[in-house]
Amino acid sequence: MEHISERLTRLRAAMAERELDALIVPRADEYLGEYLPPHNERLRWASDFSGSAGVAIVMRDRAAVFTDGRYTVQVRQQVNPDLFEILHSVETPHVKWLAGQLEAGGKVGYDPRMHSLNWARAAQKILAKREVELVETADNLVDRCWQDRPVAEVHPALLLDEDFTGRSSTEKRADIAAAIREEGAAAALIFAADSVAWLLNIRGRDIPSLPLVLGFALLHSDGRLDFFTNPEKIPEGFAAHVGEGVSVFPEAEAPAAFKALAGATVMADPATANAWCQLELERAGATLLAADDPVLMPKACKNAVEVQGMRDAHLRDGVAEVKFLAWLDAEVAVGHLHSEGELSDKLLSFRAGQARFQDISFDTISAAAANAALPHYHHVNAPEETRLHMDSVYLVDSGGQYLDGTTDITRTVAIGDPGQEVRERFTLVLKGHIALDQARFPEGTTGTQLDVLARMFLWREGLDYDHGTGHGVGAFLSVHEGPQRIAKAVSEVPLKPGMVLSNEPGYYKDGAYGIRCENLVVVRESDIDSDDGRTMYEFEAITLAPFDLRLVEPSLMTVEETDWLNDYHATVRDKLSPHLEGDELAWLQQATQPIQPAGEKAA
Amino acid sequence: MEHISERLTRLRAAMAERELDALIVPRADEYLGEYLPPHNERLRWASDFSGSAGVAIVMRDRAAVFTDGRYTVQVRQQVNPDLFEILHSVETPHVKWLAGQLEAGGKVGYDPRMHSLNWARAAQKILAKREVELVETADNLVDRCWQDRPVAEVHPALLLDEDFTGRSSTEKRADIAAAIREEGAAAALIFAADSVAWLLNIRGRDIPSLPLVLGFALLHSDGRLDFFTNPEKIPEGFAAHVGEGVSVFPEAEAPAAFKALAGATVMADPATANAWCQLELERAGATLLAADDPVLMPKACKNAVEVQGMRDAHLRDGVAEVKFLAWLDAEVAVGHLHSEGELSDKLLSFRAGQARFQDISFDTISAAAANAALPHYHHVNAPEETRLHMDSVYLVDSGGQYLDGTTDITRTVAIGDPGQEVRERFTLVLKGHIALDQARFPEGTTGTQLDVLARMFLWREGLDYDHGTGHGVGAFLSVHEGPQRIAKAVSEVPLKPGMVLSNEPGYYKDGAYGIRCENLVVVRESDIDSDDGRTMYEFEAITLAPFDLRLVEPSLMTVEETDWLNDYHATVRDKLSPHLEGDELAWLQQATQPIQPAGEKAA
Repeated sequence: MEHISERLTRLRAAMAERELDALIVPRADEYLGEYLPPHNERLRWASDFSGSAGVAIVMRDRAAVFTDGRYTVQVRQQVNPDLFEILHSVETPHVKWLAGQLEAGGKVGYDPRMHSLNWARAAQKILAKREVELVETADNLVDRCWQDRPVAEVHPALLLDEDFTGRSSTEKRADIAAAIREEGAAAALIFAADSVAWLLNIRGRDIPSLPLVLGFALLHSDGRLDFFTNPEKIPEGFAAHVGEGVSVFPEAEAPAAFKALAGATVMADPATANAWCQLELERAGATLLAADDPVLMPKACKNAVEVQGMRDAHLRDGVAEVKFLAWLDAEVAVGHLHSEGELSDKLLSFRAGQARFQDISFDTISAAAANAALPHYHHVNAPEETRLHMDSVYLVDSGGQYLDGTTDITRTVAIGDPGQEVRERFTLVLKGHIALDQARFPEGTTGTQLDVLARMFLWREGLDYDHGTGHGVGAFLSVHEGPQRIAKAVSEVPLKPGMVLSNEPGYYKDGAYGIRCENLVVVRESDIDSDDGRTMYEFEAITLAPFDLRLVEPSLMTVEETDWLNDYHATVRDKLSPHLEGDELAWLQQATQPIQPAGEKAA
Repeated sequence: MEHISERLTRLRAAMAERELDALIVPRADEYLGEYLPPHNERLRWASDFSGSAGVAIVMRDRAAVFTDGRYTVQVRQQVNPDLFEILHSVETPHVKWLAGQLEAGGKVGYDPRMHSLNWARAAQKILAKREVELVETADNLVDRCWQDRPVAEVHPALLLDEDFTGRSSTEKRADIAAAIREEGAAAALIFAADSVAWLLNIRGRDIPSLPLVLGFALLHSDGRLDFFTNPEKIPEGFAAHVGEGVSVFPEAEAPAAFKALAGATVMADPATANAWCQLELERAGATLLAADDPVLMPKACKNAVEVQGMRDAHLRDGVAEVKFLAWLDAEVAVGHLHSEGELSDKLLSFRAGQARFQDISFDTISAAAANAALPHYHHVNAPEETRLHMDSVYLVDSGGQYLDGTTDITRTVAIGDPGQEVRERFTLVLKGHIALDQARFPEGTTGTQLDVLARMFLWREGLDYDHGTGHGVGAFLSVHEGPQRIAKAVSEVPLKPGMVLSNEPGYYKDGAYGIRCENLVVVRESDIDSDDGRTMYEFEAITLAPFDLRLVEPSLMTVEETDWLNDYHATVRDKLSPHLEGDELAWLQQATQPIQPAGEKAA
């Protein structure tokens, strides 16, 4: 790749042609998703910054890069300070900052494909106050200037069998179409690629970790669907697989296809769908109706087949996790203190050996000792390689994409003897994990209401963790799926049967160590029979791997908590043993042995 | 009082004079408070309905009364069905209903003093859709037609000593004035009578249960305050008590006084302040700035003197409660099964014997057996007198207004042997009460996040209660005070030191029995020392009375819960014993004896 100063020169020339005083280059691509294909790493091309959150602003004579606290170290390593001012995106919001840099009459270019409509409207307001104009660029200036841009890989879409999805695309589209009619709309923009994948029962390989076919769709109130994507990705048998009424168009043809909706009302989510689609719909004469993606709730509430698929995937994933944990203990026992990267690769090798494995579901967090104190640590971004430390902990947060489900598990492992403080705090975290796992709650309860169950034992000791307790998880889809969540932040979304969430309380001591205990759980209706006749829900844990008993302080556990741990470990042992043998089976047996209740004096 | 048909005739004549097709008569008076003085019971005069929530709509040829589920029985007993249609206010919102009754061009009269500005704006919108006009009446038509209307009692205001308030009115007004300046406003409408009472360190006797001087105020950004009330209520020494800058005007002179604010910005809360004040401010040329009452938070966060006053009041209130509970046991023991009314009167007599007692803080809920299953039951509204039932429970929810504080306590008492089911469910309620009492939580935590702690044990058994867990309580002010609360409903108000809340989980079995365990707690900063250095808060229980040990099932209690109960009872015994003697002291000693932990198998 040519030097950043040459790239900037090229970009500024293109800006001059369009008479732009500034250009906004966000990290997001036209699909506004969490992961990008290499050919869409535009922020990296324009700034050298490779973090997952940030934006660059290029002006005629200056430029700046904005990112958040997670990347303060990395951004200084990657970005040339002679060419870019480096700013904190929270302390210095980029649009407000830009408004302060330009004269009245200034022009700011942006590509509406790379921003949500809400962002574009808010930016326009802020800039207008300074009489600065926000101008759409017809094409993307980075793409125009990017000489050695990688070509987009073209993987044929995978047609996911009904044995995995439980319902045909035709049935799903009929249900959502009915919801669209109830809103009095003629169609809905289904922008999120995972919503489209769910709706069509297809998956893809366009980006790492997320099995998506990049593109977007328009679902009509009669169930017909227009799918805008690269038609080369459409495999044989697609038409028969998705059923009648599905048409495929190149994305560039969307504006033409939108013309059919002149005068009609179209549902779209201005917070998650890109501005370009919605502006083109308006230009085509459609009226936008701001509404949540109608696929969100049905996708979040997995059907029986999807839930069983998640269970099956977690069984195989548990086998891989146990093989890894057994190998890790053996290595440490003979003094092999591996690096975080080696450990991550080894874990992947065990997952890769499992049936139906497709990919990891996110970049593995493989963190030794003090690195584990950073909840979002990634060894690949670390300044130097870190190896395991004796008498500390190792935290590994990882997951897999399988044809029948998505997994996400965190285990914290004792390396030697981490000491009494670590054992006590691990136990407080585990008690919170157990309390949330054991919760039973009435219909209508939100994750906000349950969050305290995972924190109350830490709070009692003046401790806490600064991240959410649980995020939604898709079925062979995104490992971060809405709308459900369990967190301090207000959520008005009630938990419903079939929703999958993580249960991942933690504790982090700066510069010392980190702890996290994560299983995935499924919401199910409880068969508790109360004479009130209330509908009650509860969680079923589907993750299968032991928690490290060497980190459990029995004197802090109640009898119920000890029973829970022994029962959970018995389930893990019973389900995984048939798939293990030799040392690995022996390791599982000792790792899941029942512990004795020590009463609860200290609890 | 003349017959309702004559009252309606008179009202309709006044409506005809004004050419009104309909008149809205709400239950609220011009102060929009929870309680009314007798001369403001306008809804009762216009409909015979005396419930605490409702509205009447009178038309030329028809009329209707709207109320909610709490009053479905009472409204049919009180209101003449030949003259009034009786409708459910939730199923049939009154303004929507009215819009459907009138022809285009119709005129609906309302008195803007009796409604919030938000209500008036919403009603206007709904009626406008049907081309129906909402018309202010210059005077109140009920008042004009009400011949034998009681005269408003004139009680001189009480000047509350700084030994009770902890801060002078001058200091308080200076702080709030600074907050008004921060909002860029010239003044704030302080409409809520309890906010005015707090700001001026005065109390009154205008209405039952609430020690208020009815009126409203305008606080200027320089600390000056205009108090609009009946000047006859202002006692000698008022000026010296409140300090410089306080002027008193009759309420009718408010529009004239508002003229001084022409061109200025005035803060007002359109949800809680009446429409009249805000419309008159606009007519005077002021610009309204919608904002919360700036007195709410400082009033809710009690200072050290107020908190100590609340503790002192609860000590005396506990003595009265214990005398009552001791007397009750003795009466039941000799077979005297009193009526709910007799029990309520007896409890009042014990409170009345306590120093600084002024009034009850709300209508006592004195409920035997099945009546206790109605959380808002009031024996005075019951169709017939109910006496205690053997082998059931008695629930008494009551409170007092003392010069130094306000109390609110609920105890559930065994009458004979209520049986194992009642004991088990009482214990689940008590466990929730204990869990909430023992909560420790970080700065920024809201009541919504903590609510589950009081419900989790009931939820585990498929049970719940359909009311909030905790409401704010004032210091010798309203027993229902905002903005803090603990409930399922979303609250974005963080709990702060000095806030007083109730902790009152319950359980209600239709037609059988009801259980509630209520103490008041104060939020305080915790001295827990965690190396995270987080600011943590916790609760201090200030209510002092035993929970009925005959209703506790020890096998459901953990060791910690048993310790909590024994410690709490020891505190109650130590603090109240010096104020009791003879049989009452003996009763307290046996009622607070330690119970043995039975382990927790069944928990």
